[in-house]
Amino acid sequence: MSEMKWSKHEKEIARRAYDAAYQRECAAIAEKVREMAAKADDRVALWRIHDYLSEKRKETDEKYDYRYSVLLLVFVRLVREGWIKPEEIAGLSDDKMRTIRGMAEQ
Amino acid sequence: MSEMKWSKHEKEIARRAYDAAYQRECAAIAEKVREMAAKADDRVALWRIHDYLSEKRKETDEKYDYRYSVLLLVFVRLVREGWIKPEEIAGLSDDKMRTIRGMAEQ
Repeated sequence: MSEMKWSKHEKEIARRAYDAAYQRECAAIAEKVREMAAKADDRVALWRIHDYLSEKRKETDEKYDYRYSVLLLVFVRLVREGWIKPEEIAGLSDDKMRTIRGMAEQ
Repeated sequence: MSEMKWSKHEKEIARRAYDAAYQRECAAIAEKVREMAAKADDRVALWRIHDYLSEKRKETDEKYDYRYSVLLLVFVRLVREGWIKPEEIAGLSDDKMRTIRGMAEQ
């Protein structure tokens, strides 16, 4: 799978979908932080926000990896988790779309 | 200074002032987090909240140390930083108050 080639057009589609997913996920984390912070009235609740952000930062740092050798698997995960809708990556080659859809449904 | 004895009455005063200071400082951090989170619309701003909380957690973990051997110095710092008002620890022995006030003003 790492052998797949990405055309210039595919790279543009991929970049746009990837950036949008990253932005959406960060917006969702920020929303959760706002909810937690609204109720944080002691240090236990405060450090719970810190723990949450530590976990999410680690998770997103690992997840959002734009190397083309792993990008297809990144898209599988983002589609599976709902951060990318398959129609956002329409225009990728049939074999890539088949792989992403097939694996995302597993 | 670590030789100072703390009477039962002094311990009660100290505990109350210490807990109130800790609570105030956490409330101030929470307020700052709410301000930052209200404007966090990208990942840079989001991880800035995380960095801020990491720094404050480390700082408060070091600062709030209730061992009697270091408590006077903790109070010096908390008075200097404004988390404790000297009148909140009225009732401590004269030598303790002199030390705290004198060092806090330096």
